Amino acid sequence: MTTDLTAFAHSVFEAQPFSRFLAAELTDVGPDSAEIRVRNRPELQQQHGFLHGGVISYLADNALTFAGGLALGGDALTAEYKINYSRPAIGETAVARAFALTTTRRQAVCQCTVHMLGDGEERLVAVAQGTIVVAAKD
Amino acid sequence: MTTDLTAFAHSVFEAQPFSRFLAAELTDVGPDSAEIRVRNRPELQQQHGFLHGGVISYLADNALTFAGGLALGGDALTAEYKINYSRPAIGETAVARAFALTTTRRQAVCQCTVHMLGDGEERLVAVAQGTIVVAAKD
Amino acid sequence: MTTDLTAFAHSVFEAQPFSRFLAAELTDVGPDSAEIRVRNRPELQQQHGFLHGGVISYLADNALTFAGGLALGGDALTAEYKINYSRPAIGETAVARAFALTTTRRQAVCQCTVHMLGDGEERLVAVAQGTIVVAAKD
Amino acid sequence: MTTDLTAFAHSVFEAQPFSRFLAAELTDVGPDSAEIRVRNRPELQQQHGFLHGGVISYLADNALTFAGGLALGGDALTAEYKINYSRPAIGETAVARAFALTTTRRQAVCQCTVHMLGDGEERLVAVAQGTIVVAAKD
Repeated sequence: MTTDLTAFAHSVFEAQPFSRFLAAELTDVGPDSAEIRVRNRPELQQQHGFLHGGVISYLADNALTFAGGLALGGDALTAEYKINYSRPAIGETAVARAFALTTTRRQAVCQCTVHMLGDGEERLVAVAQGTIVVAAKD
Repeated sequence: MTTDLTAFAHSVFEAQPFSRFLAAELTDVGPDSAEIRVRNRPELQQQHGFLHGGVISYLADNALTFAGGLALGGDALTAEYKINYSRPAIGETAVARAFALTTTRRQAVCQCTVHMLGDGEERLVAVAQGTIVVAAKD
Repeated sequence: MTTDLTAFAHSVFEAQPFSRFLAAELTDVGPDSAEIRVRNRPELQQQHGFLHGGVISYLADNALTFAGGLALGGDALTAEYKINYSRPAIGETAVARAFALTTTRRQAVCQCTVHMLGDGEERLVAVAQGTIVVAAKD
Repeated sequence: MTTDLTAFAHSVFEAQPFSRFLAAELTDVGPDSAEIRVRNRPELQQQHGFLHGGVISYLADNALTFAGGLALGGDALTAEYKINYSRPAIGETAVARAFALTTTRRQAVCQCTVHMLGDGEERLVAVAQGTIVVAAKD
């Protein structure tokens, strides 16, 4: 992966007001992968004190987009995805790791896991799969 | 639907810090349906000025949960869902409307549309489908 | 819808050996919708005597493709879909009805229900949602 | 995994008339995984001579069910799944390999790949993810 593509990914991420609003961080990028983290804090939670599913979905969606965009080599967007929540999201930090499984000229099929970190452990809380497409110029 | 169930839905929604953080509102509930709205504002957007997919996902996920919970008669959670984004989310307000299609004792299969409102129009920007399950007591 | 497009849909369906192998029928087409039926018979069942999920999936997948292809005006294929099974598939005939919810130049987002018919009733056994794309020429 | 569970999986598979109708084979089982194969032949194809998406879906659905059932330790069924088709299904044999990612008392979240084998190569043609639940006794 070129330095340019890494820099492009970070510049896109920094240009997302919603990612800053959540205080999310793009913590790793590769030729066809991306990792995004967010620290758990009260305003990101639901009624039982777990990280809200909407935050988990944001992480999965955005990590899928970046993994797919990197695999496709440029500006991309999530066309669709599905997510399975496997366990309540308890812990200090949520980390989403996505990678492109298969890529054609116009789209990448990507998968993502979301773990909660805390007490020296990682617990899988969600799994996602989706389609990332090259952003249309028209 | 009993008044109790309506009140329960609103009390759960008000108890979600993340929903307050986004300034989302539970604007309608029925025996097996729910509507949630959020006003578009800069901190909820992505790099092109559209409402971020993570916000659209939050709306769909949460509307699905409430529609399913109302259909199931109590505390519930989203086990999984899929979402298709059909158009960039431009407009003043996003509204997610979900309903339960089919309900058994333990789960409801629900669908949801997300529209952007503005200039006197509604534009469909996403469609979702998922499984809502009764919150486990164990 | 032009007569040509109706004829095209039927000719494509007739050209599918697997549809003939299952004795499925394309029983209705519209400008952005399609209905496919298959009679329940022993060789299409699973171990409990219900219609096999693979047959339900075939019906949903194929109905989605035809609905999307009709909406897009030509040769199309299912890029992805998800299906929720809501009830055991018992009855004489399975019918899948799909329609395009939203269409752009290159793709249609479609939904589909699958019902079992029998004893004068229709019972919803599955719900699906997916993306149909214009068949690539390259 | 106990010999009993392996034998149970094979006996369930053999009891599926639709699997025999397609001439599918359960070629491998593990404590939380399953592999199913089917030979490509004309009656399983669509209009362009590729293996029909309905056959790919059957393979994914059934492999997911067996992987989840093995992980859950008994009779199980697919509640829902999503599948992305990544490439036309050309080749001699299709093989679906599924495994359980995470398992609770009542359900397993599973993933599956489907490859086409031929000319000494394996080509990924589909990826699936779904929820397998313990078969209800009620």
